[in-house]
Amino acid sequence: MNIIVYRPIGVIRTPYSDMAPFQAEECDAEGPFVLELLPEYETALEDLECFRYIIVLFHMDRARGYNGSGVAHPPSLKGGIVGLFASRSPNRPNPIGLDVARLLGIEGRKVYTSGLSVLDETPLIDIKPYTRMDSKSDPGDGWANRQPM
Amino acid sequence: MNIIVYRPIGVIRTPYSDMAPFQAEECDAEGPFVLELLPEYETALEDLECFRYIIVLFHMDRARGYNGSGVAHPPSLKGGIVGLFASRSPNRPNPIGLDVARLLGIEGRKVYTSGLSVLDETPLIDIKPYTRMDSKSDPGDGWANRQPM
Repeated sequence: MNIIVYRPIGVIRTPYSDMAPFQAEECDAEGPFVLELLPEYETALEDLECFRYIIVLFHMDRARGYNGSGVAHPPSLKGGIVGLFASRSPNRPNPIGLDVARLLGIEGRKVYTSGLSVLDETPLIDIKPYTRMDSKSDPGDGWANRQPM
Repeated sequence: MNIIVYRPIGVIRTPYSDMAPFQAEECDAEGPFVLELLPEYETALEDLECFRYIIVLFHMDRARGYNGSGVAHPPSLKGGIVGLFASRSPNRPNPIGLDVARLLGIEGRKVYTSGLSVLDETPLIDIKPYTRMDSKSDPGDGWANRQPM
């Protein structure tokens, strides 16, 4: 199968230079968190403010990479492992990150959001509106209640 | 900014060879809808069955491409336009598609899901578990209640 080539549409500014918090912990994050688009995409932000939440896709450029083992070590399992695709680990074959964020405001080509578990200067790949199709009231807990090892 | 290179982790099988339904219409879709992973990723599916829903990321290889205008023409607006990033149009700078799907079962390296608005043979880029972080009970309607032009 062929390779797929994408280009950043902008960059994400966050307070995290070394280590971003795990997604479940980001509620109290102090910002600002800003998606800064390239100038040519400013007009494409029109109407986004109608939405309460947005889906942010980004390229986790500082991930360690996929080690071929097929497993991840979620911090909450303290040594336990799960299959990589059952995790949100950044060290996956294609290191695309996904966060659902509250949209706080847009000024020109800057989109202000609630806390993102994203390192500063991370390349932004896409922004999508979060809609009712994305909202599932019964997500379940997955392996979250498993005992740590 | 640099280019980003990804590789498919598998392929998506759907009944749609020419045109996929818009995401809001897919509820009654007749399957099967199958994510078929490359053999080397079969073990990475371990534990995914703990989750009720999954996030499917795919490369919309038959999208027309981004035309530079920054606008999209959502079918429901019948001629109306919205900013591209306020839409789920496939014709975006980086044509990554995202569907939240019900996980129906896993057999070997095949993942069976509920209806996907995806063309047959679409390259699969990533699978992520859908968790409480992704579940927002108040998504709002965005521009959905706007009058068609």
